[in-house]
Amino acid sequence: MRIATFTHDGRRQVGVVSPDGQQVAPFQLSTEQAQHGALALVEASVRGERLPASGPSLPLSAVRLDAPLPRPRRNLWCVGRNYHAHAKELAASVFKGSNENVMEWPIVFTKVPECVVGPHDPVVLPGAAVSEQIDYEAELAVVIGKGGKNIRKDDAMDHIYGYTIVNDVTARDVQMRHQQWDMGKSFDTFCPMGPWIVTADELDGRRTRVRCWVNGELRQDGPTENMIFDIPTLIETVSRGITLVPGDVIATGTPAGVGMGLQPPRYLRAGDVVRIEVDGIGAIENRFQ
Amino acid sequence: MRIATFTHDGRRQVGVVSPDGQQVAPFQLSTEQAQHGALALVEASVRGERLPASGPSLPLSAVRLDAPLPRPRRNLWCVGRNYHAHAKELAASVFKGSNENVMEWPIVFTKVPECVVGPHDPVVLPGAAVSEQIDYEAELAVVIGKGGKNIRKDDAMDHIYGYTIVNDVTARDVQMRHQQWDMGKSFDTFCPMGPWIVTADELDGRRTRVRCWVNGELRQDGPTENMIFDIPTLIETVSRGITLVPGDVIATGTPAGVGMGLQPPRYLRAGDVVRIEVDGIGAIENRFQ
Repeated sequence: MRIATFTHDGRRQVGVVSPDGQQVAPFQLSTEQAQHGALALVEASVRGERLPASGPSLPLSAVRLDAPLPRPRRNLWCVGRNYHAHAKELAASVFKGSNENVMEWPIVFTKVPECVVGPHDPVVLPGAAVSEQIDYEAELAVVIGKGGKNIRKDDAMDHIYGYTIVNDVTARDVQMRHQQWDMGKSFDTFCPMGPWIVTADELDGRRTRVRCWVNGELRQDGPTENMIFDIPTLIETVSRGITLVPGDVIATGTPAGVGMGLQPPRYLRAGDVVRIEVDGIGAIENRFQ
Repeated sequence: MRIATFTHDGRRQVGVVSPDGQQVAPFQLSTEQAQHGALALVEASVRGERLPASGPSLPLSAVRLDAPLPRPRRNLWCVGRNYHAHAKELAASVFKGSNENVMEWPIVFTKVPECVVGPHDPVVLPGAAVSEQIDYEAELAVVIGKGGKNIRKDDAMDHIYGYTIVNDVTARDVQMRHQQWDMGKSFDTFCPMGPWIVTADELDGRRTRVRCWVNGELRQDGPTENMIFDIPTLIETVSRGITLVPGDVIATGTPAGVGMGLQPPRYLRAGDVVRIEVDGIGAIENRFQ
């Protein structure tokens, strides 16, 4: 299933996108539930329940897609340096000073829930006084279904509700000057997400492909088979000592080709359009302004 | 005012502690509001409202104190290396490899909301397979009232609702091996908080004193005047490009004397009791098990 969160006639709803992509069939949710988008579906699935449908399907063209999880209930988990070529392209900058065990443990940081925006929403550049090095990072994101602590790698795939796409937008100068990355990753609007969640029965995130274009130019193109730490390992890692909760998002890292890795670096400017596609999910496309 | 979140007869409530510390006068809150503790008070204060009282005062001895914000709405902001002597004691370990601008910008990371526990709750050691280097960090925490983005240092104090105490419990080995610290700071139960919030009209966090004892032995003792980045600077920093929201918590960093900084290091073991006092607030005391 493709679970979309959308706004129609000023009201936020959640629904299933039809196989032909033309229609969306809404679920019956309270206004409060709908504000949290697909979270109610995730929680229902954990309880083994199905939510009732509500009214007739709507044409997808008549709704505005929101982020499937418009306001995750805590910061998103994000993974740094998870593709070898990307590790190399930023070895002298972002990953400089990494300890000797660089490839033994993933780098895990967070983004605040409030920076999530929809799959076609604008991303607001924070202004030159705050950062002049805004960069894109195309990523496959895992949405956790059943929570748990100390989840074993072998069981990890059972904890995935589905997958979506995020652009882990980053202010490189801010990321580096604070040493810890959360701030440079968390500026308002810095996490476009969508276009929907594809449930885990329809997609295996371990075998798909992430691509990113800036103004139509292909910049990133990586098969997720190339991850340094695969998805089960990431879930095992993040759940060590920390209880994962339904609706947790784990952004799995970005392939090579970010703006900072180019010679010379090319950062995003007002008017740039970043499109990210993940095979089996779809695409998000956001204008920077 | 001292705003306490507490449980009485199995029901969570929020109230004002009397000046003599003997009574707590509950507010009228919905069950849903009460689950988020003092957040409703913080939000009401931003709207310039006062919440109505509910029923008679209760003896403080008859209630169980919870964390004043038992489940913050997003990860807590935390500041690393904010006292010179602490910067020195961990210079060869946690802060090794810091870039040249170490003292120009604060280090800012996060803790998940779900690791918050009450001022007298047990802290659960995650087990030797996960970490053998559990450490305490006594900290003054700022609770944001009025939110905002790009808050200027000169205006920052107006955005503070009040202050509380946190123990920024840390798994040192996990903190270092992932390079980004959020995971090693976010294990379940790793953020004791309380005993209440003291509102900003009664305390100036820029001029108080943080102390910490382990099993009765004084380990940390730092005046907050010694912060490298003072509270207005921290608020200005964290709100650059990121909208702060009412109820955001900023833990302001720990003075020298953490277990890892001792020669040889002394990490926490089952049965240890950590007590943290901040002048003008009170104390939290948690047993590790």
